[in-house]
Amino acid sequence: MMIGSMSLKNDISLKIDPWGTIDIKDYSELFATFGIEPIESILKRIKKPNRYLRRKIIFGHRELGKIIDAIEKKEEYAVMSGIKPTGALHLGSKMTAEEIIYFQNLSNKSKVFYAIADVEAYCDNGLPFNLTSEIAVNNLADILALGLDPNRAYVYRQSEEIRVMNLALIFSRKVTKNTIEAIYGERPLGLYLSALVQAGDILLPQLEDFGGPKPVLVPVGADQDPHIRLTRDLARKYSNEFKFVLPSSIYHKLTRSLSGDIKMSKRDPMSLLTLEDVPKLAKKKIMNSLTGGRETTELQKKLGGEPEKCVAYELCLFHFCEDDEKVKQIYQECINGERICGNCKTEIADIVANFLDNHQKRKSRLVRISRKLLEKN
Amino acid sequence: MMIGSMSLKNDISLKIDPWGTIDIKDYSELFATFGIEPIESILKRIKKPNRYLRRKIIFGHRELGKIIDAIEKKEEYAVMSGIKPTGALHLGSKMTAEEIIYFQNLSNKSKVFYAIADVEAYCDNGLPFNLTSEIAVNNLADILALGLDPNRAYVYRQSEEIRVMNLALIFSRKVTKNTIEAIYGERPLGLYLSALVQAGDILLPQLEDFGGPKPVLVPVGADQDPHIRLTRDLARKYSNEFKFVLPSSIYHKLTRSLSGDIKMSKRDPMSLLTLEDVPKLAKKKIMNSLTGGRETTELQKKLGGEPEKCVAYELCLFHFCEDDEKVKQIYQECINGERICGNCKTEIADIVANFLDNHQKRKSRLVRISRKLLEKN
Repeated sequence: MMIGSMSLKNDISLKIDPWGTIDIKDYSELFATFGIEPIESILKRIKKPNRYLRRKIIFGHRELGKIIDAIEKKEEYAVMSGIKPTGALHLGSKMTAEEIIYFQNLSNKSKVFYAIADVEAYCDNGLPFNLTSEIAVNNLADILALGLDPNRAYVYRQSEEIRVMNLALIFSRKVTKNTIEAIYGERPLGLYLSALVQAGDILLPQLEDFGGPKPVLVPVGADQDPHIRLTRDLARKYSNEFKFVLPSSIYHKLTRSLSGDIKMSKRDPMSLLTLEDVPKLAKKKIMNSLTGGRETTELQKKLGGEPEKCVAYELCLFHFCEDDEKVKQIYQECINGERICGNCKTEIADIVANFLDNHQKRKSRLVRISRKLLEKN
Repeated sequence: MMIGSMSLKNDISLKIDPWGTIDIKDYSELFATFGIEPIESILKRIKKPNRYLRRKIIFGHRELGKIIDAIEKKEEYAVMSGIKPTGALHLGSKMTAEEIIYFQNLSNKSKVFYAIADVEAYCDNGLPFNLTSEIAVNNLADILALGLDPNRAYVYRQSEEIRVMNLALIFSRKVTKNTIEAIYGERPLGLYLSALVQAGDILLPQLEDFGGPKPVLVPVGADQDPHIRLTRDLARKYSNEFKFVLPSSIYHKLTRSLSGDIKMSKRDPMSLLTLEDVPKLAKKKIMNSLTGGRETTELQKKLGGEPEKCVAYELCLFHFCEDDEKVKQIYQECINGERICGNCKTEIADIVANFLDNHQKRKSRLVRISRKLLEKN
């Protein structure tokens, strides 16, 4: 499958930092350094790979085999993720949400665990619980509109899930400063504690209250692997007491910001595409986004464009074009110099606007269910 | 008031460490170094001082005036303490319990907050929640038998009080490593986190759910002041958001073990006197306890005993003789050489056995209420 790759082979850097500036230029290095397996090693065991798997946007994994085993044997497994409710759901969170939905749908023995990190939102962003509570209802409605089955999902607010906090407290006794500094570097106490709470989130599905030990899949961005390593380390340390199965993980490439920054972030609103953007605004944002175009139309026709650099192309590849042939066609036309950026972006902006329009209609009918789901727990 | 003092003036040491080996030889040094006020400075404002106050067993305080103001103005205040449910209530915990009961009774505007530190018991001692849950029922029944009014008490299990955990998480963001290391020294992460949870316990009574900011009194052993300093520091740091009143504290001398170790501890059962000891066993333990007797009866008659060294005398002074005149008499007879340790210990052992007998009868009628109180919350 000849799909354009986002990796820029020349600038190899491995500064993986889930909280700080992202600087991952060559994902393949992750394989060697941290023991993440390339996704190819297991792809043939997955019957209907989704867009992210087919296109190697999910590029690596740890022990995904445990999940596939559970699916094949019709045994229970969990898929775990979460969100910090600080604003509208952007494309980065959409990717994670679609991954949990995909793995939820692969078996009726699956259960999704979704954490609303409202305590983090309070600590990091100063957002009070009554505000984040509403944001969470909204975020969850988006995820339902993307296809989450609420009947096999446990969605909880961090501020209300004491079991996660208890796990964090318990873990704090056996995690040494050396371990945590080796993983995260020298950090403020609060960030270490956040990491322990996240480990609690990931291991929650294996508590007796939720049916005990089971395989758990955590889909994450490439920058989040430190949390997975810490959690696996803790699962190992507490294996006698809790019989934890070491959690599995899959790693996706980061969705870049519209201006081409390595990770889409809520900090820069105009570089951010969210599922709540009015379609017209979304179009404007896309028209302003970074492309892989040449300096002049002449050069573009002569040399072809550089889709690897192009955010608009990435929107297609990662998010909005389900049809592989269509993506290939765009790629080919671009490198052949047959596409001019203005027209191309208009085409892609229309696809996105259409998606948003449909999504927002679906979502409007799901807000009530979202609220109920969050109130129940 | 000529009551024997426990302080040994010559060996001045200030290694104050709530978790480690206790080594506080001269409480008066605390005043100068950490700004704890001597209790004398405020004693005249207390109308009916209890045994601990009259005898300077409570020797110091921080801002106890705030509590006395509230009592005088008939305004709300809280009294906060807690226990790690790892076994029977011993004399050290009895002292704290009697202090909260005393301050609860000084006004009908008071409310007691009592934390059952079951997560700590799990982390530190490996005791599972279903076990500590029963221990807590038992401990609380003792405290009710000592006189706690359950109608103005909020008793909670740490494992169930998410608000405390949320406060700990919030605090972890603004406490710097420098601050916490300056207070506790270089410690494992888990102990820092425990300290933040304790700060959460102490500040819980001031949350809106409990009527908002108010004076809170925390009675502690002299070794626990680091927790108070940290909590006051955090209350100051979060004063904008939470409007916390800086908590007040009172400091008591530590109840020694029966063998004379500086702090009675659950680690050494035969050196421990608990409220569950069968009176006969308690008597035996007391007969084996450290005294201030001389090597021979002759020397004892000639030089007099040393009540300052005597644990049996301390049992009278701290815990079991309400009558000041009686205590003075014992002290005087001892230093005059008119008391022989064997007889004296028999006398004191009988007083203690009698207390335990009555206490245990009272307690047996209160277990049901205790269970209800813990289930309700």
